[in-house]
Amino acid sequence: MLFSKKWDPKGKHCLVTGGSSGAGRALAVELAKAGAHVSIVARNPERLQKALEEVEKARKTPEQVFRCYSFAVNTESGSVAAIEAASEPFGGRCPDAFFLCAGASRPGFFIEQSEASLKQGMEQTYYAQAFTALAATKAMVKQGIKGKVVFCSSILGYFSMVGYSTYSPGKFALRGLAETLQSEFMLYGIEVHLAMPGTMYTKGYEEENVGKPKITLKLEETDEGATPEHVAGVILKGVRNGKFHITVDFIGNVFRASSAGASERNSYALDWIHGLIGYIALPIWRKSVDTAVVGHRAEHQEYLRERGFLSV
Amino acid sequence: MLFSKKWDPKGKHCLVTGGSSGAGRALAVELAKAGAHVSIVARNPERLQKALEEVEKARKTPEQVFRCYSFAVNTESGSVAAIEAASEPFGGRCPDAFFLCAGASRPGFFIEQSEASLKQGMEQTYYAQAFTALAATKAMVKQGIKGKVVFCSSILGYFSMVGYSTYSPGKFALRGLAETLQSEFMLYGIEVHLAMPGTMYTKGYEEENVGKPKITLKLEETDEGATPEHVAGVILKGVRNGKFHITVDFIGNVFRASSAGASERNSYALDWIHGLIGYIALPIWRKSVDTAVVGHRAEHQEYLRERGFLSV
Repeated sequence: MLFSKKWDPKGKHCLVTGGSSGAGRALAVELAKAGAHVSIVARNPERLQKALEEVEKARKTPEQVFRCYSFAVNTESGSVAAIEAASEPFGGRCPDAFFLCAGASRPGFFIEQSEASLKQGMEQTYYAQAFTALAATKAMVKQGIKGKVVFCSSILGYFSMVGYSTYSPGKFALRGLAETLQSEFMLYGIEVHLAMPGTMYTKGYEEENVGKPKITLKLEETDEGATPEHVAGVILKGVRNGKFHITVDFIGNVFRASSAGASERNSYALDWIHGLIGYIALPIWRKSVDTAVVGHRAEHQEYLRERGFLSV
Repeated sequence: MLFSKKWDPKGKHCLVTGGSSGAGRALAVELAKAGAHVSIVARNPERLQKALEEVEKARKTPEQVFRCYSFAVNTESGSVAAIEAASEPFGGRCPDAFFLCAGASRPGFFIEQSEASLKQGMEQTYYAQAFTALAATKAMVKQGIKGKVVFCSSILGYFSMVGYSTYSPGKFALRGLAETLQSEFMLYGIEVHLAMPGTMYTKGYEEENVGKPKITLKLEETDEGATPEHVAGVILKGVRNGKFHITVDFIGNVFRASSAGASERNSYALDWIHGLIGYIALPIWRKSVDTAVVGHRAEHQEYLRERGFLSV
């Protein structure tokens, strides 16, 4: 380790994007419990207000500053505006830590996508976090703040399957960005974290399931989802302990260790075991997925015919 | 294996994007040598014409059809137009295999990027291939062609380091898309391949080195690059043998095996060895990179000051 990695959010100013719902809101509450100042950023003002009330309930000391800001952060200018607004109560000092949880998922078959929907997918997964990271970096470097950037990708940033062509590319891209910055930010003493949670039972998950292909829903039948509160707790623990890749459960650990490449390890010994399990189990799982997809061919052919995708 | 994986390009119609230079042009020549009909697509008409002459020299039979088409493929409509034009000499039948080699790299420090340059990076890495894949899929499914889609990502789709924030995210995204489609296209009998070459000595590589940060150049000093001809040969061999992930050299194999996750393996036994080597060697390599980056701090601080990135 080149740096001491332990971090305490107490007294730090943490900005959370996507902070009005799901894992973002749960993280904001966790950070408040831990004694941090919390700024939550999201689009919808009513949802923001409700989330702020939740954060307020978790207050530990009267000194803690909790604020919410309505901004779209999928542009650099929107992200700059959000960071400047959030810096104001701190005399212009920018936040110490950025928890980037903005994002959404709209699964579907690739053949049903358009240039617009692929771009929207990238917008809702990658750009929704990348531009805030860019604005945050410029602000932190300018002010000499040795802060943190925490990306929220997904276990679908380690692997993918049928239905996720608008989602996995952006979640993989977040990993690509985090891997670059984890190296580059050693120039600044800024630390990068990459959370890779699995299924979470949130409003967003219910929404995404409405348009999800039947075969994808079937493959996910046996998934055990987690609550956003549980996921937020695990992510904050990972950030406190200086982990680069943060996975939430056993399956996540197996995928992480099996996909680590040159990424910083969490534990040399434990990752060996997780990797070994992955080496044996993941090809078996992959084969069962392949068999299910092939078994869905006839039904899918009918689906395509009804929608005019076939010439005959 | 669910399908027989051996493939022979002889008599097949192969479309190559980014086909006027680098690995794309070399692949077009390899395909011509193997007896395929070849359509090359790129922007620059003069370079296309020159590349077509190279392809012509590799002709095996008088029946082979070689054509070149000037289109920008970083939009769906551009890709559709290119595929329609290339289908015309074949009575409207769309190509059997799509080799997506379009792309470019403009490395730099993250702090020097803008919304526009990050978007351009995604354009030149991800969209330059994703939209052609989309147009190709719709055409193949419509005509019932059990073809191939070959993406050209990079070894920087497995890991990343300082300087590649405009490049690695898109190359990771290509992996995310390929992983999705490799599963989804089992519905159609279309096969997906993902080439992950390392450094190649091309005109594009010389151009990218002009703006590359000094620290990145230093970290790449010991890189052994390959010729586009060598890389094209290895890629075509991988496609012939039905490999999903195609890496070009030993280092590529180590990164592939160490990052495989749930991806289809190339060889269960050999990948074990490559993975083991990666498990031991990659953290050591990572540490040496980290040390070099930290050692570059003082010089970088000066670089930032000169360019007005610091408040003091």
